[in-house]
Amino acid sequence: MSTTDRELRVGMVGYAFMGAAHSQAWRTVNRVYDLPARVRMAAICGRDAGKVADAADRLGWETYTTDWRELIARDDIDLVDVCTPGDSHAEITLAALAAGKHVLCEKPLANSVTEARAMTAAAATAQAAGIRSMCGFNYRRVPAVTMMQQMVAAGRLGTIRHVRAVYLQDWIVDPQFPLVWRLQKDKAGSGALGDIGAHIIDLTQFVTGQRISGVSAVTETFVKERPLPAGSSGLAATVDGSAPATGQVTVDDAAVFLARLDGGGLATYEASRFATGRKNALRVEINGSLGTLVFDLERLNELEFYDATRPAAEQGFSRILVTEGDHPYMSAWWPPGHIIGYEHSFTHQMRDLVEAVATGADPAPSFADALQVQLVLDAVERSARLGSAWTEVEPALAQVAV
Amino acid sequence: MSTTDRELRVGMVGYAFMGAAHSQAWRTVNRVYDLPARVRMAAICGRDAGKVADAADRLGWETYTTDWRELIARDDIDLVDVCTPGDSHAEITLAALAAGKHVLCEKPLANSVTEARAMTAAAATAQAAGIRSMCGFNYRRVPAVTMMQQMVAAGRLGTIRHVRAVYLQDWIVDPQFPLVWRLQKDKAGSGALGDIGAHIIDLTQFVTGQRISGVSAVTETFVKERPLPAGSSGLAATVDGSAPATGQVTVDDAAVFLARLDGGGLATYEASRFATGRKNALRVEINGSLGTLVFDLERLNELEFYDATRPAAEQGFSRILVTEGDHPYMSAWWPPGHIIGYEHSFTHQMRDLVEAVATGADPAPSFADALQVQLVLDAVERSARLGSAWTEVEPALAQVAV
Amino acid sequence: MSTTDRELRVGMVGYAFMGAAHSQAWRTVNRVYDLPARVRMAAICGRDAGKVADAADRLGWETYTTDWRELIARDDIDLVDVCTPGDSHAEITLAALAAGKHVLCEKPLANSVTEARAMTAAAATAQAAGIRSMCGFNYRRVPAVTMMQQMVAAGRLGTIRHVRAVYLQDWIVDPQFPLVWRLQKDKAGSGALGDIGAHIIDLTQFVTGQRISGVSAVTETFVKERPLPAGSSGLAATVDGSAPATGQVTVDDAAVFLARLDGGGLATYEASRFATGRKNALRVEINGSLGTLVFDLERLNELEFYDATRPAAEQGFSRILVTEGDHPYMSAWWPPGHIIGYEHSFTHQMRDLVEAVATGADPAPSFADALQVQLVLDAVERSARLGSAWTEVEPALAQVAV
Amino acid sequence: MSTTDRELRVGMVGYAFMGAAHSQAWRTVNRVYDLPARVRMAAICGRDAGKVADAADRLGWETYTTDWRELIARDDIDLVDVCTPGDSHAEITLAALAAGKHVLCEKPLANSVTEARAMTAAAATAQAAGIRSMCGFNYRRVPAVTMMQQMVAAGRLGTIRHVRAVYLQDWIVDPQFPLVWRLQKDKAGSGALGDIGAHIIDLTQFVTGQRISGVSAVTETFVKERPLPAGSSGLAATVDGSAPATGQVTVDDAAVFLARLDGGGLATYEASRFATGRKNALRVEINGSLGTLVFDLERLNELEFYDATRPAAEQGFSRILVTEGDHPYMSAWWPPGHIIGYEHSFTHQMRDLVEAVATGADPAPSFADALQVQLVLDAVERSARLGSAWTEVEPALAQVAV
Repeated sequence: MSTTDRELRVGMVGYAFMGAAHSQAWRTVNRVYDLPARVRMAAICGRDAGKVADAADRLGWETYTTDWRELIARDDIDLVDVCTPGDSHAEITLAALAAGKHVLCEKPLANSVTEARAMTAAAATAQAAGIRSMCGFNYRRVPAVTMMQQMVAAGRLGTIRHVRAVYLQDWIVDPQFPLVWRLQKDKAGSGALGDIGAHIIDLTQFVTGQRISGVSAVTETFVKERPLPAGSSGLAATVDGSAPATGQVTVDDAAVFLARLDGGGLATYEASRFATGRKNALRVEINGSLGTLVFDLERLNELEFYDATRPAAEQGFSRILVTEGDHPYMSAWWPPGHIIGYEHSFTHQMRDLVEAVATGADPAPSFADALQVQLVLDAVERSARLGSAWTEVEPALAQVAV
Repeated sequence: MSTTDRELRVGMVGYAFMGAAHSQAWRTVNRVYDLPARVRMAAICGRDAGKVADAADRLGWETYTTDWRELIARDDIDLVDVCTPGDSHAEITLAALAAGKHVLCEKPLANSVTEARAMTAAAATAQAAGIRSMCGFNYRRVPAVTMMQQMVAAGRLGTIRHVRAVYLQDWIVDPQFPLVWRLQKDKAGSGALGDIGAHIIDLTQFVTGQRISGVSAVTETFVKERPLPAGSSGLAATVDGSAPATGQVTVDDAAVFLARLDGGGLATYEASRFATGRKNALRVEINGSLGTLVFDLERLNELEFYDATRPAAEQGFSRILVTEGDHPYMSAWWPPGHIIGYEHSFTHQMRDLVEAVATGADPAPSFADALQVQLVLDAVERSARLGSAWTEVEPALAQVAV
Repeated sequence: MSTTDRELRVGMVGYAFMGAAHSQAWRTVNRVYDLPARVRMAAICGRDAGKVADAADRLGWETYTTDWRELIARDDIDLVDVCTPGDSHAEITLAALAAGKHVLCEKPLANSVTEARAMTAAAATAQAAGIRSMCGFNYRRVPAVTMMQQMVAAGRLGTIRHVRAVYLQDWIVDPQFPLVWRLQKDKAGSGALGDIGAHIIDLTQFVTGQRISGVSAVTETFVKERPLPAGSSGLAATVDGSAPATGQVTVDDAAVFLARLDGGGLATYEASRFATGRKNALRVEINGSLGTLVFDLERLNELEFYDATRPAAEQGFSRILVTEGDHPYMSAWWPPGHIIGYEHSFTHQMRDLVEAVATGADPAPSFADALQVQLVLDAVERSARLGSAWTEVEPALAQVAV
Repeated sequence: MSTTDRELRVGMVGYAFMGAAHSQAWRTVNRVYDLPARVRMAAICGRDAGKVADAADRLGWETYTTDWRELIARDDIDLVDVCTPGDSHAEITLAALAAGKHVLCEKPLANSVTEARAMTAAAATAQAAGIRSMCGFNYRRVPAVTMMQQMVAAGRLGTIRHVRAVYLQDWIVDPQFPLVWRLQKDKAGSGALGDIGAHIIDLTQFVTGQRISGVSAVTETFVKERPLPAGSSGLAATVDGSAPATGQVTVDDAAVFLARLDGGGLATYEASRFATGRKNALRVEINGSLGTLVFDLERLNELEFYDATRPAAEQGFSRILVTEGDHPYMSAWWPPGHIIGYEHSFTHQMRDLVEAVATGADPAPSFADALQVQLVLDAVERSARLGSAWTEVEPALAQVAV
């Protein structure tokens, strides 16, 4: 299926946190960027008819449905945007690709390596027919992160020696915070590991251009039982005080692991929802033989760069305010120093996706890139089960080695 | 004229930097907030037919015109949003109010006290007929700034002793930067003083709840002659290299002044476009007998608070990440730690304006508030002309004292 | 009098805060630096026999006396270090110079321009006889400040456009803090202005290599009456609760002023003891056409440098950790990143003073430099009395113009 | 041997980096603190007669010797301060204790667990005879670190969930940096691990009051061969250009490990000399159920505290400037905001040691505390050798379990 008359007709499945963020981006992308196609927010899908109707109205979708199969079957949908919890990614995505729809699938790609392999294989098949697929690791499009990648690729850091990456939150420190879907293995696949750990795995592999080859890991669930939730929104939720039933937390609260990059560097990773005071602290530091780069998502308009090739007495960490017209994605926004926010990473993602689809190019990150993340997540979980023993990350093509 | 069927039909005059920022906000406000009226982006107006047509298409306005009088005359426009340079604010605004339209006028309200007085008087007359007017000091709606105001009002700082406010930029440090309209007195009224100095005057009066009673000032134009521009966009511009004609800079490059607040505090202000490396550095610190608050627009999601009532050994400047659901305006956005950007202040402004108009309340800042800023600007210019002599800020009601 | 056998025999007058800081430096300087003379801490002088005996013992002085004239009269003293309150600087210094002693006099040089002029004249006379004199603006020897001066002198900032300097403390915010000598005009000369304002005046003139040519000023005493003190130490003091008598505060609590540098730049200055939460916040920012430097005394091991000659997309404020062996004064201390403290500026000062005296060179800052500061302080006070009217700084040689 | 007449006569072995730092502290401690004994810098010992004579003169020691056995044999020495490389710690310390001398031994206590066990046993025996011993983990006496420990002990963090500790330097990033003793296993025992990793192990165990129970580790030597050194000082060194012979690096350049605390928390540790731009970046963050503390040695006067018991909207990381009179060790120094440096931690260490010896108390950290660090270092090395397998830290008393 191709873009009709320079229009890209999008159907989105899911309307919660990610649905709202994607909608804001779909609505904005053509207002800010000159693109070869114009997005049409054709349809939104959700299980609850009343809620999805409200969401369509509020978020600006032309139609809605409660049946994602119906959405995929429509002729007037070019691209399916999968914003559901991880347990339905594979089924919806496989069906959409089979129906000849381009697919944007939220991260993590799937809840298991098996699913991710199947999706990657399906994407490869679809790609031969001109169908594009992309996984939504949106942080690659934070301008400072894109700039990191470009600087590393240009050799500005020299040989990479160290990566240290954390993604720290604190929204479940309170043991009375309820058992939302993100704390249930059957829905979420894993806890902090897959939800936020996946982001730092992808981001560091993207920025360094290297893959994680092996890991040693520990995971922990600090609070093993929680009250059942009455309602939730984004990362917030409430407990039904009148019926304080509890359930088992079946995912990790925190995951820490050591890793080696295939270029020879050492790396440390930590994903936790128990880092009191840290709200959305994705922090990455990369030390190379020629310099260092540092990024902090809570100050996402800034990039710190230490250039060890400068005169010794003047070396220092430069705080680059990544808001100039010649910084990635920024020429379309405001004058220098006028900062952007979290949601802009999605607008940038949609910009590149629309352009790729319209021009017949493959967007990144591909499903294969996302599978690579999944393989690392899997290695982390295996190492944690094996007393932190060093565990090689399985090759992406292992299954074809017959 | 009242809002028709819970619809607020907006006509905007101007489509440059402010036009784009306002459009993004008008487009977004109902998608994020539950409001008693729905915005309809009815018409946009600009002098160049081709450019305004493009702007209407790109920014999402239903119709366009090159004649602001025609826009004001339309029955299907409820509110006129004035985003033109300062020299036309008064004429457009007075006409719009006379036609019974609600008005949002960008800051500074006017290029002279005389104009600002006339506009304020007209707004008062219109208000009696249920017509609302507001001046676009959008930074009041940065959540951290709103929170500052609330904390001061709640007495958390005690008696205010000091205000120090700077607004620093560097976009004209290069003497070859061309003579854009913002450097011409007839268009812009003044230079750094009115453009960015006005923001820190309004912001500090808003946050402290006090007025500046007198000033001592120095202004300076460091580069007095510049090449004429070939084109400009936002704060960026290009020189026509083939015809390097030059013209006189007729506004200040920088303005510094001392002030007293009517509550007894001392204040210092600096507005400059020659602060190399400072892109959009609006920084305000307020010292009170019980605490201190610090804000920096380049990190607008953060507010620093020093609480001198805490145990002595634990006192320190707390960096509050103003991204929680219980911070002003933030419950509608993303989970904690997911930061917002510059443009969100406009969405918040539109939120409050739509609500005020729809419910028959007066939005703030009023034209009278903006006149107060204009009176300070005027006192600064008079003091600068008089060798920095202490100069009282003229009372807002002086002219009626017959 | 010359240094005997590579020994420099020091006599110090005063043993309070400055006395302790100077003692630490005298005791340390030869342990850290290779110098052409060895300091001998020969004698200390104070009015209270018991206290000065204790101080001699504790601080490491060989002898003590209660009579500064006796100290000056001793043959075995080469240099007199004047650490008393400002009201006795002139008398002691003039006597010491007349007796052929080198003099280090704490800042501010004197409590009046008249005294400072007399001291400067005496120093010039003594200099002809090989006697050296220096004023103790120790912050010039904070390595980051020395480095700032060197970078400006090397042209790294280009033309200087702006200076903004504050020195903020908060030790008298509490209206019950007692009336110590620093709050009495007859002892201290002035309040925040002379105590801490003098530092930022000297520092900015030193770093820029320019003089302040004129000022517009406001001073304020927020708390006009305070309880009498029972005892004090450093900046801390206690009230005699049993006899809560009060007295008038006769100096400024805060002084703010605008200034012009003789090179064409604009400057703002603020000295205050009412900046809640700011303990010792001497902060200076200098914007030039090519770059910016920023210093903060509370993080005195760091210097921020914005180099506008770097590639545009990589420009940013670099935090230089001024702890490398090739940074000023630092080769004698610890490995990189091992920070130094406040007191080290005194050790560096003594290093340069000992070397100057031993090699027959004139140390800086000279009394003439310190007079220049005094003239600015005087202009500030005159402007404040004259309704902030622009006030030229009197020429240093005015009195000889007969 | 007891302190004679309120005098504590110190003999120090070693005069390099640590020797200079200890000397500065011994020289200063009685000048700043009121103590029950006065330090006498009786003798210094080093192998090179000329250099040790120079060091004695420069650093202020009364006598010197080239034979540490002679120093220990002297009747007029009360305390032996061992500042040599780790390979001689055990021999000197055991001899000194046997001779009835109090001992301060630099960290790490020894180059092996076996040595450390022997030293701990000897210290226990000596202790029964009133002989005191202490290991020089000086960072415990950085006021902000002491304050962290006090706050954790007071329950301010609640249950500890996470520790993340790094100690990052960059002095050997250049592959041409020579093979100094710190890069040789026979002298140094290990590389980054024992030199700087030991500090963060001790510091985090001290602050949390918990022990590391097990680890999973990776170590790496990035540059395996280096030129031989011509000379060295502190962490700086030069290569003999005329004879560029090389040798093998036999220690780790970097060590990373995961750990569990015996209180249930997860921890990550990283020690590296390859973190470009990080000069002395010991950084520790501790997340508890009620709050978080953050420390950075490059800004050692500051402590960040997040107090999750504050009203939600005002929570933030407070930057406490640990320079007030009521902060640990600070009442003796300068007024608030006047910062201290690296060397002050040694003065504080000597203060507590002198007081302990003079009053007959046991100073901390004891050799048993230092053995605990050694056991962790040992577990790290074992885990690294075993493919990162989870490795329990051996009990301190294992050897007596017969």
